[in-house]
Amino acid sequence: MSYSGVFPYLVSPIDPSGAVMEGVLTDLVDHLIDAGVHGLAPLGSTGEFAYLSQEQRRRVVDTVILANRGRVPVVAGVASTAISDAVAQTEYMVEAGADGILAILEAYFPVSDTGIEAYFTAIAKAAKGRPVVLYTNPQFQRSDLTLPVIERLSQVENIRYIKDASTNTGRLLSIIERTRDRMEVFAASAHIPVCVMMIGGVGWMAGPACIAPHQSIALYEAAKAGDWAKAMELQRPLWRVNEIFARYSIAACIKTALDLKGFPVGPPIAPQMPLDEAAREEIAAVLRDVGAL
Amino acid sequence: MSYSGVFPYLVSPIDPSGAVMEGVLTDLVDHLIDAGVHGLAPLGSTGEFAYLSQEQRRRVVDTVILANRGRVPVVAGVASTAISDAVAQTEYMVEAGADGILAILEAYFPVSDTGIEAYFTAIAKAAKGRPVVLYTNPQFQRSDLTLPVIERLSQVENIRYIKDASTNTGRLLSIIERTRDRMEVFAASAHIPVCVMMIGGVGWMAGPACIAPHQSIALYEAAKAGDWAKAMELQRPLWRVNEIFARYSIAACIKTALDLKGFPVGPPIAPQMPLDEAAREEIAAVLRDVGAL
Amino acid sequence: MSYSGVFPYLVSPIDPSGAVMEGVLTDLVDHLIDAGVHGLAPLGSTGEFAYLSQEQRRRVVDTVILANRGRVPVVAGVASTAISDAVAQTEYMVEAGADGILAILEAYFPVSDTGIEAYFTAIAKAAKGRPVVLYTNPQFQRSDLTLPVIERLSQVENIRYIKDASTNTGRLLSIIERTRDRMEVFAASAHIPVCVMMIGGVGWMAGPACIAPHQSIALYEAAKAGDWAKAMELQRPLWRVNEIFARYSIAACIKTALDLKGFPVGPPIAPQMPLDEAAREEIAAVLRDVGAL
Amino acid sequence: MSYSGVFPYLVSPIDPSGAVMEGVLTDLVDHLIDAGVHGLAPLGSTGEFAYLSQEQRRRVVDTVILANRGRVPVVAGVASTAISDAVAQTEYMVEAGADGILAILEAYFPVSDTGIEAYFTAIAKAAKGRPVVLYTNPQFQRSDLTLPVIERLSQVENIRYIKDASTNTGRLLSIIERTRDRMEVFAASAHIPVCVMMIGGVGWMAGPACIAPHQSIALYEAAKAGDWAKAMELQRPLWRVNEIFARYSIAACIKTALDLKGFPVGPPIAPQMPLDEAAREEIAAVLRDVGAL
Repeated sequence: MSYSGVFPYLVSPIDPSGAVMEGVLTDLVDHLIDAGVHGLAPLGSTGEFAYLSQEQRRRVVDTVILANRGRVPVVAGVASTAISDAVAQTEYMVEAGADGILAILEAYFPVSDTGIEAYFTAIAKAAKGRPVVLYTNPQFQRSDLTLPVIERLSQVENIRYIKDASTNTGRLLSIIERTRDRMEVFAASAHIPVCVMMIGGVGWMAGPACIAPHQSIALYEAAKAGDWAKAMELQRPLWRVNEIFARYSIAACIKTALDLKGFPVGPPIAPQMPLDEAAREEIAAVLRDVGAL
Repeated sequence: MSYSGVFPYLVSPIDPSGAVMEGVLTDLVDHLIDAGVHGLAPLGSTGEFAYLSQEQRRRVVDTVILANRGRVPVVAGVASTAISDAVAQTEYMVEAGADGILAILEAYFPVSDTGIEAYFTAIAKAAKGRPVVLYTNPQFQRSDLTLPVIERLSQVENIRYIKDASTNTGRLLSIIERTRDRMEVFAASAHIPVCVMMIGGVGWMAGPACIAPHQSIALYEAAKAGDWAKAMELQRPLWRVNEIFARYSIAACIKTALDLKGFPVGPPIAPQMPLDEAAREEIAAVLRDVGAL
Repeated sequence: MSYSGVFPYLVSPIDPSGAVMEGVLTDLVDHLIDAGVHGLAPLGSTGEFAYLSQEQRRRVVDTVILANRGRVPVVAGVASTAISDAVAQTEYMVEAGADGILAILEAYFPVSDTGIEAYFTAIAKAAKGRPVVLYTNPQFQRSDLTLPVIERLSQVENIRYIKDASTNTGRLLSIIERTRDRMEVFAASAHIPVCVMMIGGVGWMAGPACIAPHQSIALYEAAKAGDWAKAMELQRPLWRVNEIFARYSIAACIKTALDLKGFPVGPPIAPQMPLDEAAREEIAAVLRDVGAL
Repeated sequence: MSYSGVFPYLVSPIDPSGAVMEGVLTDLVDHLIDAGVHGLAPLGSTGEFAYLSQEQRRRVVDTVILANRGRVPVVAGVASTAISDAVAQTEYMVEAGADGILAILEAYFPVSDTGIEAYFTAIAKAAKGRPVVLYTNPQFQRSDLTLPVIERLSQVENIRYIKDASTNTGRLLSIIERTRDRMEVFAASAHIPVCVMMIGGVGWMAGPACIAPHQSIALYEAAKAGDWAKAMELQRPLWRVNEIFARYSIAACIKTALDLKGFPVGPPIAPQMPLDEAAREEIAAVLRDVGAL
């Protein structure tokens, strides 16, 4: 089986005591699957993986898997600075029933290409045949993957996807051309999904899909059908949602949007700050504009 | 009249004594117009404007205008750190017969938004109604234009185009949405032309069009006709030319390519270094692949 | 009591199974205290805090406190992206017997100044009166402290020290002038200790002191006595140790140096790579030059 | 003869028509020499070299040389992206009577180390034995000099000084250690002069010396005499002048300060903006504090 389509990056709703709010997360999963999403991606950037304890990360994924009830693939985030920790996280996710792994390299000191390859290869091995999605985000992560490294990693059998959040769409085309038949590309919220679909991408994994799932799926379907005129017509208003993401802190932004939509997922994890009323109203206006509120 | 289509960024061939090599530049102009380009852009980044004296800049534009004989619009580069100098350059270009101005802001100290707006507005005024193309390249220039500044500048009557070389295609869509009916967007070589056309761009102004004009025009025609499948088929091989540009120093790369194609335009201006034999062969291979050699 | 003098940043020796190598860490603590260091700082950058699990961090600090036997102050590192986690870490360190806290803010998304202040203030409160050292390292950490934020944090009663690893010595003088009588400055290995002492610093907290403790203390004593000529004479050769730190990955470098000195602390945590033989020999040569091997 | 001491970076006073205001520039030269400065440096960053035409640059240096009447060495700035232009500028300055050359490499595309060395070596040759000062400022210039390049350039006979404006004082010590007996280091306004003198520097070349020459010279004399306590006493208040430079745009800041001191040198060159009244008052307050107004 092959992944394609819309995989929302899920938020991680945490209550003041630090507990995962399983009820609202379950509701969100149901809502998104009802809307037709093709997969779920807990513990991406939007999921505040960088702010969660190991226990919280596990509980988020456990909750999503349970709520999903096998309906769509769950691609669980694994992120660490250390190989041994990344392997342990992966083993937990596999054991817990994740269908695939979204693999992220955190860094403090600079990492050599050899180190980068060792890191992702170790995760791939620990994933025991499950598909691995490389996720690189030069905006927030302190290491990035060069084209030669991506090309070499695409030779690893179960490293089959990449989500590159670099804003550089041309880089995606370079990746596609170099990894054809071995690796597929998903768009991030930093890219225009229509463009990524046009150059050969297979969908997107992104936070905005969490708050505008119907619109995201309609866009995906139009692009997949090659109806580019309609896809662009859907893309123009939807792009404003992406713009909002670039303006505000991502977790704060999407948690606010979900709250507006009736999913009380709480504030971002401190010291991230909740958005003020003006930002909340701006987000509400955008959501109304695209028909997502 | 409105600009659209393929506007090659021309090189500036300079001989060892510092003189503009008018013969080969004239040949190149004829070759490009014969190939069907829609306009010519001397003194862009590819044209090494940053390495030329005022006298050399003028001579390059004079030569291009003379060679062109009114066949296509000539959009001449103006670049400075100082408003008064930019105005003087613009006045010269207008007097010399340039059809439009490609306006570039150089910087040493950081520039305020007010200063940026004053700079481009002064050029627009000096252009006496001729169209002005904003050119911003955050990779090489030390200032960049924010979306609000671009939006305000689009209100100036003859500031009608922008070429943004940021690699960020999403930013182009944001510009298009904010400046509709006042400003049009051209792709740079850092963008995938098909994507820029799809989101509403009107063409591209770039160095690669100088070395693969037929292929660039075929791609433009397919995109303009809405035949996106064909456009992508043409885009894939052509993208390798853009990749080459990102790998090597731009002027060295394109001058080498032109030399390979029979236009002996000389080396880049020192201390830029000519490419070595291996690079020369890599470029030749790419040109052959796309049918441009 | 007030901190001053040489506080080595300790390494974290971890065996292949992930266990803290308590024996060699204890030996190192004894060696440094015998050499006359004025304090110990486990879990700084050199201590690879960013690569350790919570359990490993605790065990490192427990081991150091036990080995120290109350001889010098132990300033234990606390580092997190989240306030609640930083508070929990601080509470553990205080309970375990740490004399002070070295406070580090990790970040994924950008943090507002309000968020930064909330983070450090929460640690200070959890430290229950124990001194807090702010540690900011713009080279490796994704947030930095502005001068106004530092000035405001210096008003918190037990935030009494700052170690700024920015390489910008002038910034240290600006901090000293703004926080006089409330906060003291320690040099990092990115600074020239003699210069920092001259402008009013009280010592340094740094990895190199781990491998050249006698030389570091001699330099401190000369500077403290105002014998600047002698201090500079000691500084010149010692600077080569700092230069080595800037060239190689820090943990790999200092672990190699300690191994050369007879403390088998193992390799850096993967995917950090051990240094090759040439680097090992270069480090040995520098240590011999300064009389530290 | 060897350069040492205080070399103010001079401003370039330009009137609205673009003419060099020779009267006030002559007055400033007299004032600074009367104050005891050891040399004069027209066309540094403070001198807005990046904003001037070739004609304006020449006129500034001609005016300074004439006003100086041979009293102190005049080190004239040469700055270009192109070797041939830099050589022509140097030849002019030598012919005009400059005692030394302050050599600056501007860049648009990245420059290779080979290109960098060719650039500075060509200037040195054109300087016909006159001393050359390398000036590198990574904050504003798009290329920087690595330590190995500096070390190799120090082998060129008349490349005898370097002014490095990196803010990284440790880098200065590394340069000093590597180029001993061949090259001397001057502090920039980004450094604490006392620290640079302590580690072996021979003076400073900087804009602030233009507005506080007496205080700068007193500090230099104290440091040269090895009276570090007195030097630091003078340094503390004077540092506030450097801080002001980092906060405001440099040319605007120093032109405002000179205007306050009775030298009506006009505004910075547009699109640089004059400072507002609040900034003007802040600068006045700092000048009064250090006794420079």
